[in-house]
Amino acid sequence: MILGHEGAGIVESTGDSVTSVKPGDKVLMFPLPECRECSSCLHPKGNLCLKENVLSPNGLMLDGTSRFTCRGKKIYHLYGTSTFTEYTVVHEIAVGKIDAAAPMDKVCIMSCEVPTGFGAVFNTAKVTPGSTCVVFGLGGIGSAVVMACKASGASRIIGVDVNEEKFPRARALGVTDCLNPRKLKKPVQQVVVEMTGFGVDFAFEAVGLIDTMVASLESCHLSYGVCVIIGAAPSDSQLSFDPMLILAGRTLKGGILGKYKTRDSIPKLVTDYLQNKINIDPLITHKLPFERINEAFELLQGGKCIRCVLSF
Amino acid sequence: MILGHEGAGIVESTGDSVTSVKPGDKVLMFPLPECRECSSCLHPKGNLCLKENVLSPNGLMLDGTSRFTCRGKKIYHLYGTSTFTEYTVVHEIAVGKIDAAAPMDKVCIMSCEVPTGFGAVFNTAKVTPGSTCVVFGLGGIGSAVVMACKASGASRIIGVDVNEEKFPRARALGVTDCLNPRKLKKPVQQVVVEMTGFGVDFAFEAVGLIDTMVASLESCHLSYGVCVIIGAAPSDSQLSFDPMLILAGRTLKGGILGKYKTRDSIPKLVTDYLQNKINIDPLITHKLPFERINEAFELLQGGKCIRCVLSF
Repeated sequence: MILGHEGAGIVESTGDSVTSVKPGDKVLMFPLPECRECSSCLHPKGNLCLKENVLSPNGLMLDGTSRFTCRGKKIYHLYGTSTFTEYTVVHEIAVGKIDAAAPMDKVCIMSCEVPTGFGAVFNTAKVTPGSTCVVFGLGGIGSAVVMACKASGASRIIGVDVNEEKFPRARALGVTDCLNPRKLKKPVQQVVVEMTGFGVDFAFEAVGLIDTMVASLESCHLSYGVCVIIGAAPSDSQLSFDPMLILAGRTLKGGILGKYKTRDSIPKLVTDYLQNKINIDPLITHKLPFERINEAFELLQGGKCIRCVLSF
Repeated sequence: MILGHEGAGIVESTGDSVTSVKPGDKVLMFPLPECRECSSCLHPKGNLCLKENVLSPNGLMLDGTSRFTCRGKKIYHLYGTSTFTEYTVVHEIAVGKIDAAAPMDKVCIMSCEVPTGFGAVFNTAKVTPGSTCVVFGLGGIGSAVVMACKASGASRIIGVDVNEEKFPRARALGVTDCLNPRKLKKPVQQVVVEMTGFGVDFAFEAVGLIDTMVASLESCHLSYGVCVIIGAAPSDSQLSFDPMLILAGRTLKGGILGKYKTRDSIPKLVTDYLQNKINIDPLITHKLPFERINEAFELLQGGKCIRCVLSF
C-alpha cells in the first residue's frame, strides 16, 4: 500500500470523462470525496460522500482496480489519495482545483488537517464570541482547532496535553490555560469544570482515545455544552458513558473533515488564505525533502513539530 | 414521599417574598425550576436550572426542609412538586402563572409531558419541513413528539413500539409507518435505514432504555442525522456505542423538559393552546377522580391510554 492521505499536486494527465480539472492545474487531493450526487452530498449539512466508503476503505479505486504496481505485484491505494509518491492516481471526485498562485508547500495541509480543525470549530460546534473552550490534544488538528477558536472570539481556550513541550506553541496560537492531566490530582474534566464554573461551552477531542472523548463530554456545561469528537478511536472500541450526560442538555457531535464539502468548500478556503482572510502558516513547523520522511515521522511522534511538509 | 410531578393548580397562599404569583392565580407546577440567576437560566440555550438538583433529587425544599408531615412523621417531596395531593407546597421558581381562562383539566399535561415532547422536536432537534423522522416509544411523550413532527412538516414519521395496540392512535396523530421490533427479522435500526435509503434526518428516543438509544442513533443518516434522547435510562446504566457513529457526522443531543425555560416559555404555550395555535387534546385519553389513581396507573402500564388526568 502507498500511504499518505494529504497533499497538493499538479494534474499530469486525466481520463476521458474528467471535466473539472485539466493537465497543469494545481489541485488538492481529498481523502474524503464529493460526488455531488449521493444523499450526503445533496443535503445541506452532509459531507460524508457515500460513493466511496472512507470509514472502512478497501484500498482500491471506485471501479475496484488498483493503479499501482511494483515489479508486477498489485499495490493498494489509501483513502483514494496515496500522496507519499511523486505520481499518484486519484478519482475526479476527490480532486479540487485551487488558485494557480497557491504555494503548494503550504496549502497542501489544507487537504485534511486545516479543514478538519477549522471545520470542527466553524461548522460543527459553531463557536460563539466570548465563549469558553477546551481542546484535548495539541498536535496538528488540535492546533488548528485552537486557531479557529481564537478566530471565533472565544474568551478562554484551555489546552490539554500530556506533552508539555507543546504548551509554548499552543499558547502562541491562542491557548490561555494549559493542563497536563498527568500532573493533576483530580480528573482533568473535573478541573476544567471547576475552572469554568459549570463547564465549558465547547469541548474538542483531537486525540482519538475513548478516555479523552468521555473527558471532553464531561468538561462541557451540563445544560448547553457542545462536545465535538474529531479523533478516530482504535477500531472496535466502544464509547461508553452515563446517558444522563446527554439527557441533561449536552450535545455530542462529529463530522469528517470538519463537515466541509471538500470540492465545493476547500478551494475557497485556499483563496481565503491567499487573501489573508485566514492564516495557516503557524501550523507548518518543518519542511523536508521526501527522502527524509522517516525523520518527519520521528519529529511528529516526539511532539517536536505540528506538521512537517514533504516535497518532491 | 408524595409522588406526582405534573399538574395545574390554584395558588392558595404565598410566602412573604413571593412576587410572581398571588392567591387565586391559576398556575402550572414545573418539575424543573427556573431561577433566572444560574448559568443555565442566563444562557440562551440552557434550561437545566442549577438551583435545584433535579438529576439527583433529595426530596426536600430548597432550604433543606420538608413541608409535609403525616402523624408527626416527615414526608418527602418529589421534584419540588408532589402533585398527587390536594394541597402541595412549591417553591416560587417552580411555578408559572397561566391564563385565567385555561382549562385546568387539560393544560395540566403542559407542565411536563407536552413541552418535553414538543420541545424535543421544536427546540432540540429543530425538525425541518419534508424531513424523515423515527420515534421510538409511542406513549405520552412519544405521542407529543409525533404531533410536533407532523406540525413541523415532516414528510415521513416512523413509529416504533412493541405494543401494537398503540398503532391506531399513533397513525391518527401522524405516524406514517408503524414498526414492532419483536416482529422484525432484522434489528429495527437496520429496517429504518433501509426504509429511508441511508437513515432518517431525526430520531427520537422516548422509551428510556439503552438498547433503544443505540437503535435511535444508528437509525439516523450517518452524515447529518440528529438523535434526541428523551427517555431517562435506569440509573447507573451506560450508553455504549462505536464512536465512529458520531465521527461520521451524526449528532446526539438531549435536553430536560424539551429545553424550554419553564417559567418563561410554558405559560406562553398555554396561551398558544387557548388561541388554537397548538393542540394537545389528543394526548388526553382518560379522566378519573383522584381516588381512582390506581386504575389510571393500570391503564398507563397496559398501554391503554396516553394520559389520564386526575382531578380533585
